[in-house]
Amino acid sequence: MSKTKCLVVLSGGQDSTTCLGWAKNRFAEVHTLTFDYGQRHKIELESAKKISDLSGAVSHRVITVSSLSELGGNALTGAENVSDKLNDKNLPNTFVPGRNLVFLTLASAWAYQLGVNDLVTGVCETDFSGYPDCRQNTMKALELAINLGMESNISIHTPLMWLSKAQTVKMARDEGCLDWIAHSHTCYEGQSPPCGKCPACVLRQKGFDEAGIPDPLISA
Amino acid sequence: MSKTKCLVVLSGGQDSTTCLGWAKNRFAEVHTLTFDYGQRHKIELESAKKISDLSGAVSHRVITVSSLSELGGNALTGAENVSDKLNDKNLPNTFVPGRNLVFLTLASAWAYQLGVNDLVTGVCETDFSGYPDCRQNTMKALELAINLGMESNISIHTPLMWLSKAQTVKMARDEGCLDWIAHSHTCYEGQSPPCGKCPACVLRQKGFDEAGIPDPLISA
Repeated sequence: MSKTKCLVVLSGGQDSTTCLGWAKNRFAEVHTLTFDYGQRHKIELESAKKISDLSGAVSHRVITVSSLSELGGNALTGAENVSDKLNDKNLPNTFVPGRNLVFLTLASAWAYQLGVNDLVTGVCETDFSGYPDCRQNTMKALELAINLGMESNISIHTPLMWLSKAQTVKMARDEGCLDWIAHSHTCYEGQSPPCGKCPACVLRQKGFDEAGIPDPLISA
Repeated sequence: MSKTKCLVVLSGGQDSTTCLGWAKNRFAEVHTLTFDYGQRHKIELESAKKISDLSGAVSHRVITVSSLSELGGNALTGAENVSDKLNDKNLPNTFVPGRNLVFLTLASAWAYQLGVNDLVTGVCETDFSGYPDCRQNTMKALELAINLGMESNISIHTPLMWLSKAQTVKMARDEGCLDWIAHSHTCYEGQSPPCGKCPACVLRQKGFDEAGIPDPLISA
């Protein structure tokens, strides 16, 4: 095991791309991992591959997690004899409780096989979403469970945990990875160039505006 | 949420079938969950279905986890540019570090959607295998991570944690589920009736012998 290697969970979005920049400046050997979990737009996977290549990462792995889309809002269609009243939960279609727990556990299993002790993820407690599986406490507890469960010594690094979107933009600039950000995907409508109107596009633009830095995706 | 409902992780083997018997005597509404992770013999999945039906479980869900077989001993064939020296680990083909962490996290996500707070698993620290992800400490840490990550209140019950194989056999008798055990699958060679010679068959027989109870699978 070596502290010179790390594994970055790379979705192809702005946050995880920034984490990749952060990691490239701190670890000699960087691996990337992307989850194909039935996300809305496959363009995210293409972005992740492109950005991983641009970064010079040593390896880029894609893991398919079909069970997560099965467990999503439409999950119940696949179950036998489940009571109708479960639909009362009104969970949004895209929300899967525990998604990051599953992702980071699988990432740790892959890190273990790579002989990597350092895992980097873009989860963020100040994020708009506010999902509980993005929080610091969850990450610390999961890190403990993983290390007990695999007799490993894995650290989960969360460089964006306490940053605002504007601060994340500045980090991307400071880590020298704005060129990769130009290939990241955010648009909820799956458009490239982005639609500029969906909530994801608006949130992204707000971050760049507040940071006083042009979005390389727009200005490219 | 109700304490009257539980979800049993049911592999179709002797241990999880015993846990199902334990659960049926303690919860009014029992659901079962089986993982299809590319196990050696599909007969295990058939056993799980059969046993779940026999038990009168309210629902039986099968979740496919293809990523685990990808992460197994042959995982590296799917990776790009991974160093050859990783093969030095000599991990057995069937060993996947963190497998139970992934299973129980997915089980918790399903429990959450079912409105179930009680999860039952047959992991056992005294088990022959001795995998670290079957240990009490791992379960406690994972329970914490899950509940922080989903803002849930899930308890992971492990009725077999400190039992020997002979004690598990006696529990199956006491919980009245030997009839279900007759349909459980253990044989590593995937044979039915079992080969009686493989290590799994030998270990199973030893447990029944020590308990002084005939294996219903053999005597059926």
